[in-house]
Amino acid sequence: MDLLFLGTSSGVPTKQRNVTGLAVLEESGSAWYLVDCGEATQHQLLHTSLSVNDLVAIFITHVHGDHSYGLPGLLASAAMLGRKRPLTLVAPAALEGWIAATRAFSELYLPYELNFVAVETCAAWSGNKLQVEAVPLSHRVPSYAYVFTETNQAPSLDTDRLAALGVPAGPLWGQLRKGLDVVFGGQTLKSADFLHHPHAPRRIVVGGDNDTPSLLATACNRAQVLVHEATYTEEVGSKAGDVGHSTAAAVAAFAQSAELPNLVLTHFSARYQSDTTRSPSIGDIRAEAAAHYRGKLLLAEDFARYRLDRAGELKRVES
Amino acid sequence: MDLLFLGTSSGVPTKQRNVTGLAVLEESGSAWYLVDCGEATQHQLLHTSLSVNDLVAIFITHVHGDHSYGLPGLLASAAMLGRKRPLTLVAPAALEGWIAATRAFSELYLPYELNFVAVETCAAWSGNKLQVEAVPLSHRVPSYAYVFTETNQAPSLDTDRLAALGVPAGPLWGQLRKGLDVVFGGQTLKSADFLHHPHAPRRIVVGGDNDTPSLLATACNRAQVLVHEATYTEEVGSKAGDVGHSTAAAVAAFAQSAELPNLVLTHFSARYQSDTTRSPSIGDIRAEAAAHYRGKLLLAEDFARYRLDRAGELKRVES
Repeated sequence: MDLLFLGTSSGVPTKQRNVTGLAVLEESGSAWYLVDCGEATQHQLLHTSLSVNDLVAIFITHVHGDHSYGLPGLLASAAMLGRKRPLTLVAPAALEGWIAATRAFSELYLPYELNFVAVETCAAWSGNKLQVEAVPLSHRVPSYAYVFTETNQAPSLDTDRLAALGVPAGPLWGQLRKGLDVVFGGQTLKSADFLHHPHAPRRIVVGGDNDTPSLLATACNRAQVLVHEATYTEEVGSKAGDVGHSTAAAVAAFAQSAELPNLVLTHFSARYQSDTTRSPSIGDIRAEAAAHYRGKLLLAEDFARYRLDRAGELKRVES
Repeated sequence: MDLLFLGTSSGVPTKQRNVTGLAVLEESGSAWYLVDCGEATQHQLLHTSLSVNDLVAIFITHVHGDHSYGLPGLLASAAMLGRKRPLTLVAPAALEGWIAATRAFSELYLPYELNFVAVETCAAWSGNKLQVEAVPLSHRVPSYAYVFTETNQAPSLDTDRLAALGVPAGPLWGQLRKGLDVVFGGQTLKSADFLHHPHAPRRIVVGGDNDTPSLLATACNRAQVLVHEATYTEEVGSKAGDVGHSTAAAVAAFAQSAELPNLVLTHFSARYQSDTTRSPSIGDIRAEAAAHYRGKLLLAEDFARYRLDRAGELKRVES
């Protein structure tokens, strides 16, 4: 499972960072999911290998424009590029009316089905390889985290090894798959020796805007990764007059208390400069978080891609 | 008067070209105007010297998303960046309801006045140094051209020269300004020698999507520049199944018949590649237009800036 950040700035875009958008990719195949869709998310996609045709579902954390204004353009471009597959949109109910108003005024025809799911009434959405649960957060408007959990964790049969032993595909394989031992060529083959027990299901929690990280305590249980906004450091945040957000310190302290192995911070106020020799900079956010958290700490940047492997390790990979 | 192209692609953005947006700059000062606001127009502005605080008015040619979906983000960012000056939005009436719906669902508060003017009921809008008239075009939806004409063409007094001659600011200057000759230091100073008669008013016609360039015949009278879409060449356009647009040939032939000195083509279908060794390319559009037009032909690209000087000459300048 990969995370590919498409936008990591809060409120307004900067030259280095677009407003919020995060692609979640299934382990194999080309299917992917989008969490939030700030303006110009479709433009960011042009600089990645992702195709809007392979997008399965979009999850919007809350109604603010820096998380949603890119939706109309993305839907329209998917139409112009010939998408036919249905697309699911999980979002606060208020978005449904806005999408309808947008389609009406701009005469936007979509040649594919857009299935709207109001997050208020749907706690969990099931895809092919993932289940996505919504968790209410605390912000100026209703806001949600989306928890991506791997499914289809049934044990898999080591068919390569069976074939090497000359065991033909057929009823014997079926019995082994069911947990039954079988006799072949005078030898007993133990089912347990041929079933790969799956790794622990991977779980990634992607927060929306939120001033109370502890609301994610249950969701973070058995999660390997938390992606969370850290809009401000404590010092700048107290002066910003902008309520409803988390500081780097607060998120890091929560992640430490939850014993989360990996924490990815994002959604930085545009006042934090990428050049860490200037002030305030992204370096201040890193330093503040590092003082409260001893796990693997990552600060997202646009086009950074992280892979969560089956062992639960999160590593940056080529995007 | 300058033109600064912010987006020159039709329908969908490409890596090289954003969807439509064009800044029109007054000759002096920082005031500027925006014609159309495709998604990510605010992102394009980050790479120019233009400030959204100096934006006086926005003119939308028609309701299609590639000309309008950037509005909410631009309005929101202006708010977050502290704009207080009122902003005028001239657009098809249907946009007013969409902007209201957008503000409502996303809880967007604007700390400045947004003055909406329905283009259907307002044929001409007067600014400080410019008058802007709307001209109906022909497209799949109602579409308009905006004609920018320089105003305040009253003669100006050569005060530098008067000061150099020692003539003190006061009643004598007032008489000269009114066209009266005066006596100073025993000499007669002729008003005509101190009044700069203005150049012909500059006029730039900026078309919206349009399949009938001749609708601009009257507007192009005494215009120095026409900016017009040339979405397709004749060959590609006939196969595209996309009605309501102009070919390079049609626009060029019209500009030739109207004896326009400068023609700037824009809004190219994304299938035309910038690399002119590939096919179809922007070079095809240039060649087709050049075969029908003998004036100065320019093909817009993102961030190209053109200056129309007082003599009516259009030249590319540093953006």
